[in-house]
Amino acid sequence: MKVQPLKGFRDYGPEEMLVREQMIDRVRGVFESFGYAPIHTPALEYSDVLLGKYGDEGEKLLYRFDDNGGRDVALRYDLTVPLARFVASNPNLRFPFRRYHIAPVWRAERPQKGRFREFYQCDVDLLGVDTAAADAECILIDFMVMNALGLDGFRIEVNHRGFLDGLLEHFGVPKTGQIGVMRALDKVDKVSREELVKLVAAEGVSEETADSLVSVGDVVGSNQERLDACRRLVEGNAKAEEALDRLEYVFAAVFEAEESAPVFFTPAIARGLDYYTGVVYETFLPKSYGVGSVMSGGRYDGLIGMFANAQVSAVGISLGIDRLLSALEAHGEKQEIRLSRVMVCAMPELEAACFGIAQLVRKFVGGRGRGVELYPKAVRLKKQLDYANKKGIEVLVIPGPDELAQGMVMVKNMATGAQETVPVMHLPEVVQRMLSGVATEESR
Amino acid sequence: MKVQPLKGFRDYGPEEMLVREQMIDRVRGVFESFGYAPIHTPALEYSDVLLGKYGDEGEKLLYRFDDNGGRDVALRYDLTVPLARFVASNPNLRFPFRRYHIAPVWRAERPQKGRFREFYQCDVDLLGVDTAAADAECILIDFMVMNALGLDGFRIEVNHRGFLDGLLEHFGVPKTGQIGVMRALDKVDKVSREELVKLVAAEGVSEETADSLVSVGDVVGSNQERLDACRRLVEGNAKAEEALDRLEYVFAAVFEAEESAPVFFTPAIARGLDYYTGVVYETFLPKSYGVGSVMSGGRYDGLIGMFANAQVSAVGISLGIDRLLSALEAHGEKQEIRLSRVMVCAMPELEAACFGIAQLVRKFVGGRGRGVELYPKAVRLKKQLDYANKKGIEVLVIPGPDELAQGMVMVKNMATGAQETVPVMHLPEVVQRMLSGVATEESR
Repeated sequence: MKVQPLKGFRDYGPEEMLVREQMIDRVRGVFESFGYAPIHTPALEYSDVLLGKYGDEGEKLLYRFDDNGGRDVALRYDLTVPLARFVASNPNLRFPFRRYHIAPVWRAERPQKGRFREFYQCDVDLLGVDTAAADAECILIDFMVMNALGLDGFRIEVNHRGFLDGLLEHFGVPKTGQIGVMRALDKVDKVSREELVKLVAAEGVSEETADSLVSVGDVVGSNQERLDACRRLVEGNAKAEEALDRLEYVFAAVFEAEESAPVFFTPAIARGLDYYTGVVYETFLPKSYGVGSVMSGGRYDGLIGMFANAQVSAVGISLGIDRLLSALEAHGEKQEIRLSRVMVCAMPELEAACFGIAQLVRKFVGGRGRGVELYPKAVRLKKQLDYANKKGIEVLVIPGPDELAQGMVMVKNMATGAQETVPVMHLPEVVQRMLSGVATEESR
Repeated sequence: MKVQPLKGFRDYGPEEMLVREQMIDRVRGVFESFGYAPIHTPALEYSDVLLGKYGDEGEKLLYRFDDNGGRDVALRYDLTVPLARFVASNPNLRFPFRRYHIAPVWRAERPQKGRFREFYQCDVDLLGVDTAAADAECILIDFMVMNALGLDGFRIEVNHRGFLDGLLEHFGVPKTGQIGVMRALDKVDKVSREELVKLVAAEGVSEETADSLVSVGDVVGSNQERLDACRRLVEGNAKAEEALDRLEYVFAAVFEAEESAPVFFTPAIARGLDYYTGVVYETFLPKSYGVGSVMSGGRYDGLIGMFANAQVSAVGISLGIDRLLSALEAHGEKQEIRLSRVMVCAMPELEAACFGIAQLVRKFVGGRGRGVELYPKAVRLKKQLDYANKKGIEVLVIPGPDELAQGMVMVKNMATGAQETVPVMHLPEVVQRMLSGVATEESR
């Protein structure tokens, strides 16, 4: 009998969950501030809905089985294909439609450090319009989310698939070599220029052409300078020029909203997924975090309408919260969030009174993220204090029979050690004051 | 190709999800105010962990399959058995341990109105102590949750398994008839007294004894009067008397905290699940809601330690949030929560400026539950207004080129129709004022 989580899966204990929930709350706050509303789709879908969407490699990772009624079903692999199914199942949706979805997805990947078979995605998508404003909105959301999570030094790198397509067209890359060239360009930071030229040339162009093409990875300077350099590179190719015009518009909107947003035109990035059709973006933490993009997305105009037999424009962005959490932990930025801040001790013969006192304080200072707990058994006080210390309790309430008979109760500030005996009716205010860290007259 | 949710499953659109998320936030607030912290366990467990825990009927409802690595796995059926597995997998847990878990569970039940194969449970459990204070805490949490959800007229019915066991012992019910008698007693409100006597007698006692036994369903009056009546009924049976003493203690604590809590000793209720060992409770809405217990639980000292080879006392309570939502909807209490309250119109040639204006307002009034959206395409104003009306937007911002050239912008209160033209730098305050419903000087 195995009493572990399933291989490749993990539990989250209270310490980890409090941090994760706080992050998710902040992400939600940003999503909702832009007018995105949550939806829910089931964990299981008919396999038909998911098959043929993730490539051969992705498809192997599906948790697929026959349910008790003999239906061929699978656990969702991402939140995007279920969104497409949702759009088809809800023909009366009003566009533009802004939705977010924060939920686990399941992939039977080979387990490795920091990568699990169940992980949360935080997806936000704007459906029904194909505009630079919609593209820019997702980049702005990315920026606001990273900010809300308190992250520093991140970079949002932006490109446009139309530019890459036009670039390849301009340099005469044969159709069969296009994916290979894009994959090669994605490695611009990882391999030498010589290697890159070889990789590109191997896809069916001359070394000379390859050399010109890979110069797209050399552009430097401001976004405007990069745009201008790329314009010179693809001059005369309508598709690429149109994409660059669109990007210029996107940047103008983003900087109008947040002039110091760390958003950079990076003309070599392609993003792995084949379904992108326009702008694409990735978000990188400083190299020291040792993690790839933590929030990424783009425009994918072909996917959402596939079940609805309609063209539904879409642009979105997705945050991998578990991946980000692992990176922060590995970087030594382990946050600690304490939930229970106040504890009422349980005293023999006074159980009901202690219970009432805890509720009195709780109604005043308790709430989301702020707990008032009663030690649930009248054991020796030393044992209760030991528990309170280990748990990092900030304020301790110790009801005693003699004090209670006079309507009084003892309170202790665990940080300073100061204690006072106060009327029960004033207890909530005194506890609140101690929690706010204000020293009291009596305790000086 | 099926483009519906899987049979027995459902989507939640934004309107339903906003209501559900608000409910869950409130439930969380109550749980955390008592010092309960969230944990997460995976959706999938080794089947070994789940098998043999839910009876033959329950076991048939498991979504069980072989994963890609040939492991026999199943989707979780509840949050309690995974908690027991979590306790065994985390041997360094500090007791008393208070945890909550809000997550979906999956059961392949026959689909019926208001019942789905995927539904959320909100579980809260206190592990490691067997005290009346812990029992009382769960009842108090039940009361606070129902209050936080704004529900009226609910009743929390409380009993103790030890009382029922002692009662059956006292009246000489043979071991083989005990479950049958408890099931019969659970029907006290649904069948006539004669039928009840017959059902009980069929389990191996005389009609006369059965008649005395079922008089447990007749007790009326205050909780104290009910306790006293039951004491007379089981006089001399130590197990039943001990249970009644415990209940008296539990009620004293609950009423010390909330003297008007609608908590009633109901000596006939047993709760379906076999694993309860002490106090049990159920929560009923007024009959007009046509739903059974929406929040229930009890003490189950045998279950949590089963994987850990240890005795771990446990008491807990669980809210079925989807069931409650269905009942509220069916009762005509459909709540409406609006997310986007402000919309900035998109104007041709002013895209970037509109984008910046939306962000200015958003940073001031946007947040969780409050959205500021930019219409993402500069279409005809009539179309944008139509969308804003249908969506219930409260404040509309309409940037115009002439006003913007002078640093001004038009704002419209959609409820009153009043509009003003204000400096862009004052826009956030003006929008905030309109949202708070305060009439302005200019608009009078």
